[in-house]
Amino acid sequence: MPTSPFAEHTARLARELATALVSEADDTRLAASAADIAARILAAAEAPHTVEIDAPSPGAAHIPFDITPASSPRNPLAPPMDIVWDGERSTCILTLPLQYQGPPGRVHGGIIALLLDHTLGNAANAGERPRSFTRYLNVLYEAATPIGEEIVVTGWAARQEGRKQFMEGTITVNGEVSVRAEGLWITPRENMTLVTSDGAEQR
Amino acid sequence: MPTSPFAEHTARLARELATALVSEADDTRLAASAADIAARILAAAEAPHTVEIDAPSPGAAHIPFDITPASSPRNPLAPPMDIVWDGERSTCILTLPLQYQGPPGRVHGGIIALLLDHTLGNAANAGERPRSFTRYLNVLYEAATPIGEEIVVTGWAARQEGRKQFMEGTITVNGEVSVRAEGLWITPRENMTLVTSDGAEQR
Repeated sequence: MPTSPFAEHTARLARELATALVSEADDTRLAASAADIAARILAAAEAPHTVEIDAPSPGAAHIPFDITPASSPRNPLAPPMDIVWDGERSTCILTLPLQYQGPPGRVHGGIIALLLDHTLGNAANAGERPRSFTRYLNVLYEAATPIGEEIVVTGWAARQEGRKQFMEGTITVNGEVSVRAEGLWITPRENMTLVTSDGAEQR
Repeated sequence: MPTSPFAEHTARLARELATALVSEADDTRLAASAADIAARILAAAEAPHTVEIDAPSPGAAHIPFDITPASSPRNPLAPPMDIVWDGERSTCILTLPLQYQGPPGRVHGGIIALLLDHTLGNAANAGERPRSFTRYLNVLYEAATPIGEEIVVTGWAARQEGRKQFMEGTITVNGEVSVRAEGLWITPRENMTLVTSDGAEQR
């Protein structure tokens, strides 16, 4: 489904609420934050068509009507990831707040897998390629990936065999690799017929 | 951090809001839902210490003061998972709403990895074992895992070698395996000294 300024505004407030919920142990102070956020949701809901936002999030180009928990601007579970494809690689630079934490100070290992799956999937589906899906994803955790610091998620195609694309990726922190991933993306046979360029069936 | 009835109540409302945001394309109807949810947050925030909830979520026993995006009752990103350890296996039965969707009708592959990482981690850390962390996680997607239907996530230790635990797991839908996972969990050397039973250093 398409996003809207009102939906994205509300999702941003829902993200603020999630951060407050995992940051504030004192119920009285949490209630003050929650009330403030709820009042701003109510104010916008009174006139949803007049809401304006700064710098709308683009969502992921490879997913029509994105509602995913990774890149959708209107899904509060999504950071949201803003993934850029440069013709060879897909890259997302982001800083994750506390609601994505696993071990103290570190991004949850499952969230790391989510970031990599989505970025490798973006690269696998970039350009004119027919839509493909994850067959397997292997994630190797080499070092801590911090909460509250800028991290860079990158994905690229290592090689292609027919309908198969073998993808690779990393997460880096200050230029050092913290996580490596590899995975296989496969285009369903029926999707191949959607491709009009010569030799598509051999990809 | 410990949870509280007010925090969990508010997180439940935040989950409702996330579902509305990815379900309702019409801004006018979305605004009505958002206003209703915001009003309920405001009402609870006026007297947070009087809030009562039915059936509090337990969180994951292997994580003290759980705020994770997988099992924390107070984190709106978490379904939350309710993982049960039976002495051999960790199991979580759940039904995921639309905000966890990747391809249409299916759970996002990265969310599947999150569910498995958390469940295998629960099994690796169950009982008297010293705390361990994911070294790698390999996920094999064999079939669709549906949104809005009951799924079962299971994890167990296949074998141990010193500080290493080789974990395995599945997701099943109507008794059929949709996803398989295997991973390695390692206990840091410094954590081994916390174990008082004989032979702990050999685990």
